[in-house]
Amino acid sequence: MDSLDPRTGLPVVVMIGGGQLARMTHQAAVALGQSLRVLAADAHDSAALVAADVVLGDHRDLDALRRAADGATVLTFDHEHVPTEHLRALEADGHRVAPGPAALVHAQDKLVLRRALAEAGEPQPAWAEVSTVHAVTAFADDVGWPVVLKTPRGGYDGKGVFVVDGPDRVAPLLEQHGTLLVEERVELVRELSAQVARSPFGQVAVWPVVETVQIGGVCAEVLAPAPGLRDELATTAQELAIRIADRLGVVGMLAVELFETADGVLVNELAMRPHNSGHWTIEGSRTSQFEQHLRAVLDYPLGSTAMTAPVAVMANVLGGAAADESWAGPALDERVHHFMAHWPDVKLHWYGKGQRPGRKLGHVTALGTDVAEVRARAVAAARYLADGVIDPAFAFAEDHHGRHEQRGARHE
Amino acid sequence: MDSLDPRTGLPVVVMIGGGQLARMTHQAAVALGQSLRVLAADAHDSAALVAADVVLGDHRDLDALRRAADGATVLTFDHEHVPTEHLRALEADGHRVAPGPAALVHAQDKLVLRRALAEAGEPQPAWAEVSTVHAVTAFADDVGWPVVLKTPRGGYDGKGVFVVDGPDRVAPLLEQHGTLLVEERVELVRELSAQVARSPFGQVAVWPVVETVQIGGVCAEVLAPAPGLRDELATTAQELAIRIADRLGVVGMLAVELFETADGVLVNELAMRPHNSGHWTIEGSRTSQFEQHLRAVLDYPLGSTAMTAPVAVMANVLGGAAADESWAGPALDERVHHFMAHWPDVKLHWYGKGQRPGRKLGHVTALGTDVAEVRARAVAAARYLADGVIDPAFAFAEDHHGRHEQRGARHE
Repeated sequence: MDSLDPRTGLPVVVMIGGGQLARMTHQAAVALGQSLRVLAADAHDSAALVAADVVLGDHRDLDALRRAADGATVLTFDHEHVPTEHLRALEADGHRVAPGPAALVHAQDKLVLRRALAEAGEPQPAWAEVSTVHAVTAFADDVGWPVVLKTPRGGYDGKGVFVVDGPDRVAPLLEQHGTLLVEERVELVRELSAQVARSPFGQVAVWPVVETVQIGGVCAEVLAPAPGLRDELATTAQELAIRIADRLGVVGMLAVELFETADGVLVNELAMRPHNSGHWTIEGSRTSQFEQHLRAVLDYPLGSTAMTAPVAVMANVLGGAAADESWAGPALDERVHHFMAHWPDVKLHWYGKGQRPGRKLGHVTALGTDVAEVRARAVAAARYLADGVIDPAFAFAEDHHGRHEQRGARHE
Repeated sequence: MDSLDPRTGLPVVVMIGGGQLARMTHQAAVALGQSLRVLAADAHDSAALVAADVVLGDHRDLDALRRAADGATVLTFDHEHVPTEHLRALEADGHRVAPGPAALVHAQDKLVLRRALAEAGEPQPAWAEVSTVHAVTAFADDVGWPVVLKTPRGGYDGKGVFVVDGPDRVAPLLEQHGTLLVEERVELVRELSAQVARSPFGQVAVWPVVETVQIGGVCAEVLAPAPGLRDELATTAQELAIRIADRLGVVGMLAVELFETADGVLVNELAMRPHNSGHWTIEGSRTSQFEQHLRAVLDYPLGSTAMTAPVAVMANVLGGAAADESWAGPALDERVHHFMAHWPDVKLHWYGKGQRPGRKLGHVTALGTDVAEVRARAVAAARYLADGVIDPAFAFAEDHHGRHEQRGARHE
């Protein structure tokens, strides 16, 4: 059903999930004349705080999904957790679901992904499906310990991933989780992400490949483009992302998370939605991943992915010292004041979520020309927001509250 | 009262008025962790369609204003039409109002502005307050016909402005409107706009001076920076805007609309809010006028006003042929498709309003290096959205719906 909003003559996109991805997608929708409808679990969810059209309900509840879908042009997702059978039911109702369940399962189930990539002959770590200790040790005999055990479903931000260096820990993990995916532990140079958008028509648009810096399994920084990445390998990674999007029939944004090794790139996992590795595109690319996701799921032509500056660095603000109950430093609003005084050219994205240690609370993006300088600026700003720690390299000037006249760039 | 939202620990800004300025301010608020509360006359108002926190009511109704103000950190405006006595009543209630009534009256009443500028010795057209035909002819004897008669209050987009070339039309205008402002008709080179933000602390930030192209009294295009403007005159205009902001105690965004003449610049009028002449800043400046307005009214430190490209051009989409009832061409959603196919690097801002001829329905922004090229691109895109007319210079390629792989910029 190709419903348009009778008030505006424009489409209604429903996003299942009310997190920060939905929040930032709503911002992009506003520019396109739309208002994103979100299915949020809670009225205090990040996107529910800012969107006009909020349906409260659980993404595992088909009735809630049906309420959210009513009158929508297309349904899409802020996470991968909607059960496949519900997606099929929504399609049977006549709704457009993007990405569709047959594609999305590759982002939901790591075993399904491994099988599909193997069939396609795409580069990935050695892997096996295992349900016995014996199978794991047989695999480790081939590739060597340690190996990485992963729950096929439900893992994110390092959850559901276990590095084990011998057979002892295997039995309890199998007992707890049932069948697991086992993978060789790859000798990493670093982690990369290749993002591509694909429309139902088959148009694709790809961004420069970025480096993602993980701390404790959680994305901490994204450097765009990946510093020093050889052109040839960048092209290889972009073509790989396009091939996967095409083969799986992805509609919307696809992030292909990659391991860079001495020999090339290996696919780690996929996300079929806007992704933390693409937040830099809000300021750093002519078209943000959020706008592009909307364009793609609506089968609109895609926007330019040209960068707006030679270098963009995104740093996540993870709940740190300031999110702890014992925090006695400046409150959030005061930290935002100091952040703005000190970094007038670093852009803030705050998600409005409750502060808890380790939680993704917001991110900042800095642009420039020299990756070391831009990265230092972004990381110092994010660290100050999280921990109230002022990097000595960015020590506050005594007069940072002083009167300051800032002249715009002149036209010469 | 310095209330913070208990859900987020961040401020609550209330904007009186639910038009496109409030809509775009909401987008900026989302990035800062906030959700703009808007007082909208109608649930279908541009901002009311996208904001989570909407109070319905009339801006001339003090009770409605009080309902909107409840618990707010600060109140600000999407237009100049709130009666001064209501603003004073809200201040008496303990609310922060930005800009305050003493400043805002200079954007509400052209006679008050003329008197204030005269007292300050700032450059402006010859003017007089007139309530008789005799006074108008005496003024015209000095400056020559035609003269420009203006209603002191309530005019915008060319409304309330009358160019009269002899005494005959004067009497009916005075009869209809009472006391008027009369001004010399200035020999224009062109119109300019100098935008500045000012915080209660007194920090100011100024953007490059832009050229505004008016058609029938309505802003059609904005060229940033104003092409060929001499550095010296640009600085004069920026310093003038800063002086006015300081002298009047403006808090928030101030647009100083200027006439450029052979001798320099003259102040036409003021707007104390985000302004059409600053829409280009969303993509064209490191800090948009909408974010800056929020920073200023909250007394946050101001953001960088550096341009993100050498040239930015904004073109308004005014309701044209496609907004007429007799329109038989492609509907809006189809025009948006074609717009996106044809101009993948021109950014759309659609306001979600009902389409009526002459109404500001949206705008587009293009960035680049050559002003003639950028302007042609923006204007052709806006014209297509308004009138369904394809500029021959931008004739659609036959394969514009064809498969197109777009590679991101490479890091060389």
